Amino acid sequence: MNKEETIVALATPNGVGAIGVIRLSGPDAISIAGSVFKGKDLTKQESHTIHFGQIIDGDIVLDEVLVSLFIAPRSYTRENVVEISCHGSGYIIESIIKLLIKKGATGAKPGEFTLRAFLNGQLDLSQAEAVADLIASNSKASQQVAIQQLRGGFSSQLQQLRDQLVQFASLVELELDFSEEDVEFANRAQLKQLIININQVVSRLIESFELGNVIKQGVNTVIAGRPNAGKSTLLNALLNEERAIVSHIPGTTRDTIEEILNINGINFRLIDTAGIREATDAIEKMGVERTMEKISQSALLIYVFDAVEITIEQLNNDLKRLQKPGITMLVVANKADLLTKEQLLSLPHSQSAIIISAKLKRHIDELKRKIYSSAVKHQLSGDETLVTNIRHLEALQKTEAALARLLNGMETQVTSDFLAMDIKQALHYLGEITGAVTTDDLLDNIFSKFCIGK
Amino acid sequence: MNKEETIVALATPNGVGAIGVIRLSGPDAISIAGSVFKGKDLTKQESHTIHFGQIIDGDIVLDEVLVSLFIAPRSYTRENVVEISCHGSGYIIESIIKLLIKKGATGAKPGEFTLRAFLNGQLDLSQAEAVADLIASNSKASQQVAIQQLRGGFSSQLQQLRDQLVQFASLVELELDFSEEDVEFANRAQLKQLIININQVVSRLIESFELGNVIKQGVNTVIAGRPNAGKSTLLNALLNEERAIVSHIPGTTRDTIEEILNINGINFRLIDTAGIREATDAIEKMGVERTMEKISQSALLIYVFDAVEITIEQLNNDLKRLQKPGITMLVVANKADLLTKEQLLSLPHSQSAIIISAKLKRHIDELKRKIYSSAVKHQLSGDETLVTNIRHLEALQKTEAALARLLNGMETQVTSDFLAMDIKQALHYLGEITGAVTTDDLLDNIFSKFCIGK
Repeated sequence: MNKEETIVALATPNGVGAIGVIRLSGPDAISIAGSVFKGKDLTKQESHTIHFGQIIDGDIVLDEVLVSLFIAPRSYTRENVVEISCHGSGYIIESIIKLLIKKGATGAKPGEFTLRAFLNGQLDLSQAEAVADLIASNSKASQQVAIQQLRGGFSSQLQQLRDQLVQFASLVELELDFSEEDVEFANRAQLKQLIININQVVSRLIESFELGNVIKQGVNTVIAGRPNAGKSTLLNALLNEERAIVSHIPGTTRDTIEEILNINGINFRLIDTAGIREATDAIEKMGVERTMEKISQSALLIYVFDAVEITIEQLNNDLKRLQKPGITMLVVANKADLLTKEQLLSLPHSQSAIIISAKLKRHIDELKRKIYSSAVKHQLSGDETLVTNIRHLEALQKTEAALARLLNGMETQVTSDFLAMDIKQALHYLGEITGAVTTDDLLDNIFSKFCIGK
Repeated sequence: MNKEETIVALATPNGVGAIGVIRLSGPDAISIAGSVFKGKDLTKQESHTIHFGQIIDGDIVLDEVLVSLFIAPRSYTRENVVEISCHGSGYIIESIIKLLIKKGATGAKPGEFTLRAFLNGQLDLSQAEAVADLIASNSKASQQVAIQQLRGGFSSQLQQLRDQLVQFASLVELELDFSEEDVEFANRAQLKQLIININQVVSRLIESFELGNVIKQGVNTVIAGRPNAGKSTLLNALLNEERAIVSHIPGTTRDTIEEILNINGINFRLIDTAGIREATDAIEKMGVERTMEKISQSALLIYVFDAVEITIEQLNNDLKRLQKPGITMLVVANKADLLTKEQLLSLPHSQSAIIISAKLKRHIDELKRKIYSSAVKHQLSGDETLVTNIRHLEALQKTEAALARLLNGMETQVTSDFLAMDIKQALHYLGEITGAVTTDDLLDNIFSKFCIGK
């Protein structure tokens, strides 16, 4: 990346709309925009002001536009930024971008605006990543986690702890210079306490990933059961709409159906499946195999059975067959409306099963609460810090291991030079999260996933 | 439409992008935006300024945004306008719009921002229509015509002439009050001259529609000829890329292929066709029928023949068969590279045919010039006024008829009251173009074709 270059890209989605916004960033953003703008002299205007005028290519008027000015460092990238709001025609947008490139701008690479914001100190790395998460957010919970991370989130807290550890590192380094004198500049008790503090934060963040991931990615949820147990009816009751084709003919649902059920901001991807039983024909056998495969890829299994028809043997068989380690299973007894209270009480597994009537939509809310709490074990407070990014998780796990080595070293009273090495390693992994330590590969990897224009 | 309402809509296209822009317009735009904005007090800021802050729903931060303020009448609609530039997530955009509606805004109807701009006198009707044309523009020429119209174009000229006619109308009306005294306040010679002037402008505008329509809609152009005449090779040569599947097996192109060829800003929609001949099988027969149908729907036919193989009878037959009234035909002799100069000169129709080699890309530029000039009869000056809108054409034609009646009436020396009626009618149709005369139906019809957010 060459910071001397001024980059340009469309910041709004492609397609027809009332307006499109073209963004320039770099030292020459204002002069390049000014060279094609007929209106006020842009170089003489204040930051955060908007100016009406025309984009001209020689004598030809390309469009009437509004130009917004952001003078460095008061911009997203901390560089000079100009946003041109033009009519939303693909032809006009393309013409203006081509013209700006002719006047000296360079087409921006994916994520290059945010990369510049990071390199210029506007955002730390986890904040930059939050920008991408925010754009991709599709539920209240995922949006809340992303905005929390964008607003500083956990990286500021980690950065603070890392700064303290840096001080200890330099004290330990100092000891190396005086190694013959056997002095301890770094108070070992204080250092140990700091490491324990960091470890607590890191452990909590690692733990938060389970929920963070649920929020960001949603929960793969399979609805399974014997044919005609009411799986599709249950799906419809949960979604409160007629989505799956429901019939009384066992085996109606051959293909899998996916729908999003949002409970308190968490997306559950519901996958309805073909009924499981001893398959009689090849197509049905494939359906059952696919069901088993879907279950193994899911995090939550809703097993539904027909409370009227099922035998205790069938039920026990099914439960044994479907139970998989690491996959939460909710057992649902359907068609409760057809049973008396006594019959209900004598149902097999009546203690643990959730008893509903999908058809009459009875106890569906209770089931939803159970679904939600299977994924979200404790109450979400809203301003809590959650790790959602696999890169962060890995760096945190490496930090945790480095901290363990460091503590272990201190207990076995290693020499200052070993201690210094262990501290350095912990600092390295902590720094990877906030971006205090980066490599070109790491940055490439992160920003290439952004869209162009961000 | 209730101007007391403040409207809101997404102004940028749907889809994932770096940013989305939500637009509010109306008396409460600033206070509604301010009620969900955490940052500076928006009601105390100047027009054309930009402010960073957060959109909050109670305690929940929905996004970090930039808010642009346009204080009435210095805005597109001449009302208070606020633009919120947020992260381009569908979830976030939807949440913010919902929140603004909860705070008192109303979802905008298609074109309602531009409708307000028109009703508040910011744009006349033909300018408002030019906004939609500008958004839909897909070539240099269509964009130039739209921007010309947006910048005043012909409506200002017509408005001026109409104003003069209005003065005459009131003078003639005045004569009615003094009808018993037989006075003439309106100088008949001057009135006649004015009508002739208006008529000249109107006639020129009507004439311009042919070209205006070509520019706005492009030109349907069929390439036809016998199998293996080189139609697909010619298409590729014109487009300068390998688009159609080319082979030596006659009849390769069964289905029609459409491509856009842009010559000097005019879009020619090239339609390659199955070869025409006495079809031998059913599928091929369908192909030939489709070719004939495509020709009848086109404005330009490029007939290409194999200069080596064709006989004079075949050629004459084809020309007779393909010639249709109202459709320009260019006759192209292909495979000229395989003939000697003498053979070329003795070619049938060698005077009128354009002689090329599609394979070697010889004389393709000459063919392009002929294609262009078949659609554009005179040189485009760039700031010329063209009518592209069928509604305008109809109003102009009605105006022309009314002016003819008016002139005729003056020549037969009708009484002032008839004269007044004729003038009124001419004024009415002229006014329909500029929007001086509108009905709710007319406005509905125009603005319902806009996208929401414009």
